Amino acid sequence: MLRTPKRLLVGRPLRTEQLGDTLLPKKLALPVFCSDALSSNAYATEEILLGLGLGGVALLRLAPWVALAVIVLLAVVVLSYRQTCHAYPGGGGAYAVSRANLGETASLAAASALLVDYVLTVAVSVAAGVANVTSAFPALVPYAVPISLALLAVLAVMNLRGVKESGTVFAIPTYGFVVVVYLMILWGGLRVAFGGSLHAESAHYGLHAEQHTTGLLAIALVLRAFSQGCTALTGVEAVSNGVPNFKRPKSRNASATLAIMGVLTIVMLAGISLLAMISKVHITDDPSRLIGAPAGYEQKTVITQVAAAVSGGDHTILFFLVAGFTAAILVLAANTAFNGFPILGSILGADGFLPRQFSRRGDRLVFSNGVVILALLAGLLIWAFDASTTRLIQLYIIGVFVSFTLSQAGMVRHWTTELRACPPARRGRIRRARVINAFGALLTGLVLVVVLVTKFTHGAWIVVIAMPLVFWMMKAIHRHYERVAVELTPGDDAVALPSRIHAVVLVSRLHTPALRALAFARASRPSTLTAVTVKTSDAEVETLRAEWAARDIPVPLVVLDSPYRDITGPVLDHVARLRRRSPRDVVAIFIPEYVVGRWWEQLLHNQSALRLKARLLFRPGVMVISVPWQLGSARTEPEAPPEPETPPEPERPTEPGGGRPVLPDAGRGTVSSGSGG
Amino acid sequence: MLRTPKRLLVGRPLRTEQLGDTLLPKKLALPVFCSDALSSNAYATEEILLGLGLGGVALLRLAPWVALAVIVLLAVVVLSYRQTCHAYPGGGGAYAVSRANLGETASLAAASALLVDYVLTVAVSVAAGVANVTSAFPALVPYAVPISLALLAVLAVMNLRGVKESGTVFAIPTYGFVVVVYLMILWGGLRVAFGGSLHAESAHYGLHAEQHTTGLLAIALVLRAFSQGCTALTGVEAVSNGVPNFKRPKSRNASATLAIMGVLTIVMLAGISLLAMISKVHITDDPSRLIGAPAGYEQKTVITQVAAAVSGGDHTILFFLVAGFTAAILVLAANTAFNGFPILGSILGADGFLPRQFSRRGDRLVFSNGVVILALLAGLLIWAFDASTTRLIQLYIIGVFVSFTLSQAGMVRHWTTELRACPPARRGRIRRARVINAFGALLTGLVLVVVLVTKFTHGAWIVVIAMPLVFWMMKAIHRHYERVAVELTPGDDAVALPSRIHAVVLVSRLHTPALRALAFARASRPSTLTAVTVKTSDAEVETLRAEWAARDIPVPLVVLDSPYRDITGPVLDHVARLRRRSPRDVVAIFIPEYVVGRWWEQLLHNQSALRLKARLLFRPGVMVISVPWQLGSARTEPEAPPEPETPPEPERPTEPGGGRPVLPDAGRGTVSSGSGG
Repeated sequence: MLRTPKRLLVGRPLRTEQLGDTLLPKKLALPVFCSDALSSNAYATEEILLGLGLGGVALLRLAPWVALAVIVLLAVVVLSYRQTCHAYPGGGGAYAVSRANLGETASLAAASALLVDYVLTVAVSVAAGVANVTSAFPALVPYAVPISLALLAVLAVMNLRGVKESGTVFAIPTYGFVVVVYLMILWGGLRVAFGGSLHAESAHYGLHAEQHTTGLLAIALVLRAFSQGCTALTGVEAVSNGVPNFKRPKSRNASATLAIMGVLTIVMLAGISLLAMISKVHITDDPSRLIGAPAGYEQKTVITQVAAAVSGGDHTILFFLVAGFTAAILVLAANTAFNGFPILGSILGADGFLPRQFSRRGDRLVFSNGVVILALLAGLLIWAFDASTTRLIQLYIIGVFVSFTLSQAGMVRHWTTELRACPPARRGRIRRARVINAFGALLTGLVLVVVLVTKFTHGAWIVVIAMPLVFWMMKAIHRHYERVAVELTPGDDAVALPSRIHAVVLVSRLHTPALRALAFARASRPSTLTAVTVKTSDAEVETLRAEWAARDIPVPLVVLDSPYRDITGPVLDHVARLRRRSPRDVVAIFIPEYVVGRWWEQLLHNQSALRLKARLLFRPGVMVISVPWQLGSARTEPEAPPEPETPPEPERPTEPGGGRPVLPDAGRGTVSSGSGG
Repeated sequence: MLRTPKRLLVGRPLRTEQLGDTLLPKKLALPVFCSDALSSNAYATEEILLGLGLGGVALLRLAPWVALAVIVLLAVVVLSYRQTCHAYPGGGGAYAVSRANLGETASLAAASALLVDYVLTVAVSVAAGVANVTSAFPALVPYAVPISLALLAVLAVMNLRGVKESGTVFAIPTYGFVVVVYLMILWGGLRVAFGGSLHAESAHYGLHAEQHTTGLLAIALVLRAFSQGCTALTGVEAVSNGVPNFKRPKSRNASATLAIMGVLTIVMLAGISLLAMISKVHITDDPSRLIGAPAGYEQKTVITQVAAAVSGGDHTILFFLVAGFTAAILVLAANTAFNGFPILGSILGADGFLPRQFSRRGDRLVFSNGVVILALLAGLLIWAFDASTTRLIQLYIIGVFVSFTLSQAGMVRHWTTELRACPPARRGRIRRARVINAFGALLTGLVLVVVLVTKFTHGAWIVVIAMPLVFWMMKAIHRHYERVAVELTPGDDAVALPSRIHAVVLVSRLHTPALRALAFARASRPSTLTAVTVKTSDAEVETLRAEWAARDIPVPLVVLDSPYRDITGPVLDHVARLRRRSPRDVVAIFIPEYVVGRWWEQLLHNQSALRLKARLLFRPGVMVISVPWQLGSARTEPEAPPEPETPPEPERPTEPGGGRPVLPDAGRGTVSSGSGG
């Protein structure tokens, strides 16, 4: 019934053969894999300023140094990931690397960090993207959440359709963003160089210091600002995941792309930060601390403020270009998560750490379940943190750095093993590589600690709880699957053929479904056959007995007494008794069932039958046989449209009365022999 | 798994025989059936004052006249219901009466009015009860909603336990309330008589008139006040419902009780209203209109204010007694709805206007479903209208008067038919009776219109929508059941014995559940037996084929190709093909199923199996056979505790390995003959 709308949304199914990878040249790989990393520039500077702003305007002058620190860190991480690209041409995500080098636990830690982070990437990117739109059109500010959710929905559907992320779609916003930002930096730089002065709209507003910034506190603030700035690093690992999708030589191209990305990011980060400094952008996450701002003043994002300052006003072309492309690339960044999460999910599903369903491709060859789950979780976050980038980012970075640290550590281990099995000649290179990764691991680990300490109270604790939960969940699922696998591998004396089958037909009234069940039961020629009814009211049983006699049905009718008006109990006991009498035999329980077409009709039938079935399944040596009776609503309901290219079913017409096989009393004696045909 | 807590809450099941009616003497019947009606005095006056208050203090002097009008109405309604008691000794609820005299549609209208009203009774009474508690302890004001919900829960559980409403439980609060109120009235009356003066705490506060009360508007306000005052009539019909529970002579006693109740109510209403007038109680539903009230002043209910005024202060014994008993009787009133709703529901269920489940007694002999639904709906209302009596009452009265009018009209019709078939001697009496009911119908009808007009915009529209919805729903359900009944009555050529059975065993991998399914299928000796697997990946199919060969299973394995990786489609088509080949035969589909113990494990298995089963049931001439395999978690899970007094099941121990019957190769060749035992 949900088919047609589904088809409209996601399109018609694709054959398995249509699955195929397109290898990407560098110029397309950059937008595809780096949009996330590049997009971080949209908020990195802002985060630094927000962090320092807590110490009032005074601290802001430290911004360049913080930015510098971030840049150094970025450079190191890029360097060490370039090596990962070479070491793992098969795709060196944190999970893969740590799985290969640090064993299951570490890899699961990485995996949970990644999973949590993908969700956050989507939430943060969408929220940030919308934030830039609303800076351009302040009228939209109150609708941030609905807009974000709508965008999210669009992304989800796009990915359920399984858009082969055709580089071009990505190329435009990504390169557009880079170009526009560089333009802005250049323009701004020139204006400053020629003695011009830049004034952000918020330049004249003061900032209440949240804390007195003396000694230690100041350091704490700076550290916090730094950790917030580290958002600039998010998305760096994407390339190392995607190595297999690069044109040959895969590794070389990948690491080259990584390098380009690094350079681009560093320049943008530096440029934006400097311009923000010069044009005195003042921004805060609680507007009450903004001094001298007019009532109802909506803060713009830093990048748009800078654009306005550089181009002189927030109605210039540049301003709108920056705002627009920033929003665009941020949404793209979200999309990279939509690629990453389902794939990681499918790997984990195949390894048995997530439900198997995650490893199955939907009918559009996408790992649909992953996409849906991701969208739901991200939507939940956006809604819960009403689409506030700053509040969401607090949760963001931890996961990033957990996976950074783990994969770096993994690489160190990797090189060490390499070192053993390689000719002395190449040892030097490997040693150097190991040093770099070790340094990377150390640094990212350090940052991780800083982030943890400075962010814990600002929401990071959520992640600190979420990650272990995911970790534990995956462990539990794995244990379950393993246990089941053991249980299910048949031994030699595996399953014996039961000696006899005792059929039991459950009847309440003697209506057609019951009659059909009886007919089917008889047709299956069991060793013994009895009809069973549960007596909740004498009257009903009497009428049943009467009808039974009237139609003189050749099946003994057993009446189970039920003093507590409960159907399930007595039947279960009856079955138990049968089993006790002959433990080697199987009890086959025939349950006549109505099949109704409309959902609400379901509520009007079968309630007790369903409960009973559920309970019976827990009894060993029992098989439960539902004999369906399609009611009008179910029959008249159009058959589910045949899957494309499978023949439509011509058997329908040939069956009178909804296909009940009616024998013209072929000597076989119909059940209703009382009124013999 | 939910059994133990359930038992703790509602107690052990009761045998059907334990069902029995206790006949009530008048002095117990009064509290049982009239607590609702009597309790209305707790808010009737308040509603009048609130209504008039909208016109400012000036209009308040009209209060006595409005009260008088209400009293007259009440008298008339009581009179005409007394006749109903005589005419319908079998219980003359609005549904019964209008069903007997006005036909299905009218009776359903009455029924939906009643259903909606029962829900509102519960919501209003609980809310009002809590309001009186909070007047006594203003500190509790902010917790009104949670307290109400808690109370509601207690009521629900009490009624699920099926408290035989032992009159005494009711007697204390009811009589207590009556006595205390009379005491208050007397005391107050004496003080006034001896020239004393009463001052309500709110006497000195003015009231902003919401509208300028000129001419028509004033009339409108008065009408509205009147319609609000009509809440005094709620619950009157309860007695006529309960006639069968009275001691003989039932009708006489019932109508007598009704008379007593009427007198008691009228006196209380008059008394409270007068005292409220004299002591100048000023109350409003939006505190902002209260002039001169100190900040944070919490308005008390009128009855408690009067009590305070009479006894001089809100820390007197009388004050707390009034507050306490008012709260108590109000909660009791809610309880009467808990008796009424499930019974009406069961009648409607039996008549096929509500799901049959409503007509089944739970294991405590209560119509549990009704109780649960009622509690949920009432809770929803309380939460939605954050436990504000005034706002809830707006919805209340309409339903009451719909049922009043209908039952009165029904009575008129009743007398008219009586008239035909009776000796001229008694005609006079009957004519008189008819006049009374006619007048009652007219008056209540009139009030209904007034209420509708004056209340529509104040939330009444919700009811005006809800009632037709319920009505329509019941109609739909009835139609459905009727259609089904027709479909299910077997004709003569009813169901024929299918000629042959084609068994199909679905296998994905060759694990023990599959082997068991195969064994069971073979044991049932079908005409044809094939195993079917759906090919989503070549690898899987190959391994399956290999294992098949290895264990050389004597069943042909059919591989269905599935280009779209969809399991359901191909199987359905296969079944269709089989059916086409031999339309007279039955296709028996064996599905190996895991049975897991923990809910979350369910998510890790059977997803596709379940989908498939659901779809298969829609195919005619098919029976679906689940062959369960109990996994460890399911087997180790303790069996659901045996119902009391049913023998515990001794078959468990006698079954090795979870009761799989393992034959020491009894010449029948186990399925795993490859590695024969």
